[in-house]
Amino acid sequence: MRVLGVDPGFATTGFGVVERLGGGLRALAVGAIKTTPGLPQADRLLELRRALAGLAAEHGPDAVALERVFFNANVRTAMGVGQAAGVVMVTAAEAGLAVHEYTPTEVKSSVVGVGNASKHQVQVMVAALLKLAAPPKPADAADACALAICHLNRSGLSRAIAGAAR
Amino acid sequence: MRVLGVDPGFATTGFGVVERLGGGLRALAVGAIKTTPGLPQADRLLELRRALAGLAAEHGPDAVALERVFFNANVRTAMGVGQAAGVVMVTAAEAGLAVHEYTPTEVKSSVVGVGNASKHQVQVMVAALLKLAAPPKPADAADACALAICHLNRSGLSRAIAGAAR
Repeated sequence: MRVLGVDPGFATTGFGVVERLGGGLRALAVGAIKTTPGLPQADRLLELRRALAGLAAEHGPDAVALERVFFNANVRTAMGVGQAAGVVMVTAAEAGLAVHEYTPTEVKSSVVGVGNASKHQVQVMVAALLKLAAPPKPADAADACALAICHLNRSGLSRAIAGAAR
Repeated sequence: MRVLGVDPGFATTGFGVVERLGGGLRALAVGAIKTTPGLPQADRLLELRRALAGLAAEHGPDAVALERVFFNANVRTAMGVGQAAGVVMVTAAEAGLAVHEYTPTEVKSSVVGVGNASKHQVQVMVAALLKLAAPPKPADAADACALAICHLNRSGLSRAIAGAAR
């Protein structure tokens, strides 16, 4: 199973394509999509859409894992994050990919084992699980990988439960 | 000049295609796009995208006028509005249309003449300006027409100023 994790943002959107092979995890592509400052907002969202569609076409993920965004965080950037999340969702749906949303607490619980883990702990665990020499940069890319890992863990658990019930 | 006004929402998105011909205004299409309750969020955004792309293709507007959304209004619906606005923007950009955003105060000033006009006053003026027997329903459709009229008024003013400066 292969998952495209996405940490949406208006200026910078982190992404990570992560695959489970047997018992291990592997990162196929990790990075960030940066939109061009100074361009009209709609054109920056179009840059994001095209980059995401390209990633989906290149790596053929089975699903997209996205951060569930809340608006208590930062009202100044919230609108841009909401718009970017909408673009991620519609691009995934158009590519026929299911979208799964996870809260930061769910991601931390799944990746580190505790829901109140620090950003640094998440990054270190992402590097360890993906056998990378250092945590992915920028932080958005590491967060995106954590989202993908979270979805892979949860899907594995669902399958195990379904198997045990049979 | 022909403008597609859009009042974005996750469940209901109002639209109005309005044209200026000589001194008068004419509505070519007025209504609301409703997404299917119960579908996954991403699929509802895809319904919105397809309906908007269809409207743009059918009516060939010169620009899109969109409500500039703020997050002090209603935090519960803000995320859905932000996502829908992102989908409107990216769909417009992909169709090669410039997106112009206006605040509710700018729209009221332009359509009614006062920035603190009531929703009802805006609806009555929209009906009068478009020579409709009654204000468009739902309210989102009337708001979308008001956005289109606002952009047409402002563009006319810009042209008049540019002409006078020559």
